[in-house]
Amino acid sequence: MGEAVEGREAVDLLERTRVVVNPRLRTTVESLPGSIRRVAMYHFGWEHADGTPAAGQAGKAIRPALVLAATGALGGDPDDALRAAAAVELVHNFTLLHDDVIDEDATRRHRPTAWTVFGTPDAIIVGDALLALALRLLAEDGHPAAPAASARLASCVIELCAGQQADCAFEQRGPQEVSLDECLDMAMAKTGALLGCACSLGALYAGAGPEEVAALDAFGREAGLAFQLIDDLIGIWGDPGRTGKPAGADLASHKKSLPVVAALTSGTPAAAELAELYRGPMGAAAVRRAAGAVDRAGGRDWAQIHAADRMARAVDQLSRAVPDLKAAGDLLALAEFVTRRSR
Amino acid sequence: MGEAVEGREAVDLLERTRVVVNPRLRTTVESLPGSIRRVAMYHFGWEHADGTPAAGQAGKAIRPALVLAATGALGGDPDDALRAAAAVELVHNFTLLHDDVIDEDATRRHRPTAWTVFGTPDAIIVGDALLALALRLLAEDGHPAAPAASARLASCVIELCAGQQADCAFEQRGPQEVSLDECLDMAMAKTGALLGCACSLGALYAGAGPEEVAALDAFGREAGLAFQLIDDLIGIWGDPGRTGKPAGADLASHKKSLPVVAALTSGTPAAAELAELYRGPMGAAAVRRAAGAVDRAGGRDWAQIHAADRMARAVDQLSRAVPDLKAAGDLLALAEFVTRRSR
Repeated sequence: MGEAVEGREAVDLLERTRVVVNPRLRTTVESLPGSIRRVAMYHFGWEHADGTPAAGQAGKAIRPALVLAATGALGGDPDDALRAAAAVELVHNFTLLHDDVIDEDATRRHRPTAWTVFGTPDAIIVGDALLALALRLLAEDGHPAAPAASARLASCVIELCAGQQADCAFEQRGPQEVSLDECLDMAMAKTGALLGCACSLGALYAGAGPEEVAALDAFGREAGLAFQLIDDLIGIWGDPGRTGKPAGADLASHKKSLPVVAALTSGTPAAAELAELYRGPMGAAAVRRAAGAVDRAGGRDWAQIHAADRMARAVDQLSRAVPDLKAAGDLLALAEFVTRRSR
Repeated sequence: MGEAVEGREAVDLLERTRVVVNPRLRTTVESLPGSIRRVAMYHFGWEHADGTPAAGQAGKAIRPALVLAATGALGGDPDDALRAAAAVELVHNFTLLHDDVIDEDATRRHRPTAWTVFGTPDAIIVGDALLALALRLLAEDGHPAAPAASARLASCVIELCAGQQADCAFEQRGPQEVSLDECLDMAMAKTGALLGCACSLGALYAGAGPEEVAALDAFGREAGLAFQLIDDLIGIWGDPGRTGKPAGADLASHKKSLPVVAALTSGTPAAAELAELYRGPMGAAAVRRAAGAVDRAGGRDWAQIHAADRMARAVDQLSRAVPDLKAAGDLLALAEFVTRRSR
C-alpha cells in the first residue's frame, strides 16, 4: 500500500470519527449554561463571536479517533466508547483554551483565540467548564470501564498540567539551561500523555486487561512524542497554509522546542550562534538565521530521526497488545498520519 | 441551648473535621508532580513560598464538615465519605485559585495569593490540577455512591463556572443595570451550589434516595445563600480581624454584592446617591458614604432579613430528609455557624 493511500485511509477515518463524535460533542457543549456555552461554541468553531452559526470544524478529531480505533483493535465495539472519545476531545479543548491564555497565543485554527475575543476571565472559566464536562460525561456513563477511565483521564489532566507548567518554566530559563531530557519529559507530559490516555481509554472500553491497557498507553505516548517532534519541525520550517502556524513562529517566540534544544545542546559552533540569537529580539532576519543554525547544529536531522525512532517504539508497544497488527490498522494509520503532516 | 454553646459546637465540629480530612487532603496534594505541588502547598498554607514548612491552616473546612455531617444525619458512616469531603474541599480551592486570578485579588487567608507569588500561569495550572485531583479522588473510590457523586461534583463545577462568569459580567454593567434576581441567581450558582453539593454528596454516601439527596442539596443551597448574604454584609461593615477582608473592601472594588444591588434597586433617594458614587472612583470617603447609602436604602436590613428567611427555608428542606431534627444537629450547627460570622 502506497503512502498516499495510507494517508487517505487516516483522512477517511478522521472524517468518519467526526461524523459520529462531533454531534455528541456538540450536544454536550450545548448543555452548558448560556453565557459559558457561547464562548465554547465559538472556540469549537460552531458559532461566530456574535453567536451566529459558523461552518467551522471543531478540530481534526485525532484523539477521539484513537479512542475508537483502540477499542476496535482490542475487539470491542467502538460505539461503546463514544462518550470516552468525546471526553478526551473536551479535555484537549480545555488545554487549548488555558494554554492560549497562558502563552498569550492570538490565533487558533485560523481564528482569533477565545481570550482575545471574550477576555481572559471567560477563557479560563470556559476551560474549567469543559474539563468538568469531560469528567461528567464519563461519570454519567454506565459502562463498567467508566470509573477506571475517569481515574485515568483525571490523572492525565494532572500530567498535562505538569507539562504545561514545565513548558512555562523553561521559557524563564536561558537558551542553554534546559537539557534535552527535560525537554523530552515535558513533551511527553504535554502531548504524549493525552494521546496515550486516548488509546488506553479505548482499550478499557474494549474490556482489555492491565497489560494491554498499559501497552496501548505506551503506543499513544510514543506516537505522541513523534507527533510533537514533527509539530516542532513545522513550527520552524513548515507550512502555514496547512497548519495555521506560520513558519518560524516558534523561533520568533524564543520557544525551546525539541529541535531547538537538541541544537542548543549539540556543542557545535552553530549551537553558540543559536544561543546568541535566542538572547536577543527575534525579527524576521534573526528567525531565518536561527532556522539555519538549528539545521547546521543537527537539530533538524535529530528531530526527524528521533521521530522515526519513537514511531518504531510505538509500533513495538502496539504489537504487545495486538499481536496480529492487521487488527490495529486504524491505529497505525492514525499514528502515521500525525507524524506525516509536514510532508 | 444558648447561642454561645451552639457556636462552640460548630467550632469543635470543624476542628474535628480538619483532624480527619486535612491529612487526607494533604496526602492527596502531595501526590502532585513537584512543580505543581509547590504552588498547591503554598496555597493551602502548608508551605511558605520558598518551600519551607508553614503552620498555616488549609481553611475552615466548612464544606468537608457538611459532607460528613450529612452522611451522619442520614444514618451513614462519615468515615465512608472522607474522600468525598476531601474532593469537595479540593474543588473549593480550585475555585479560589482561579477566582483570585480572575478578580485580581492580592490577599487570601491573610497571605499573598498564589498568582501574586508564582505568577498567573502557575495559578491557572494548579487550579486545573486541583480540579482533576478532586475528580480523580472520587473516580478511584470504590464506594457504590462514587459515580453519582462524581457526576454531581462535575455538574456543580459547571454551575460554579456559570456563577463566576455572571459575577464577572455584572462588573462590566452599570450600577443599576443588574437586577436583584440576577444577583441572587449568581450567588446561588457561585456559593450555594457547592454547599448544596457537599450536603448531597454526604447524603449519597449514606445511601440516601433521590428525594433525600435533593432535600440535602436544597438545604445546603439555602444555607449557602444565607452565608453569602452575611459575607456580603461583612464585605461592607465587618470585621477584618476575623475574616481577613477589610471593611468596605467590596465597596472599594465597586462590587455588586447582594446588599448593594438590593440598595441600588430600592427606588429610594439613597439608591440614586449610591449609583452616583459607584460611577466614580471609590476612595475612603466615598466608601464610607456608600456604606451609609446602602444602609439608608434598606440594603442592610434586607440582607439580614433575607438571610434569616433563607435559613428558615434551609431548615424546612432539611426536615424533609431528616424528620427528627435531633439527628441533624451537626448540619444545623454548621448552618448557624456560617450565618453567624458577622456578630
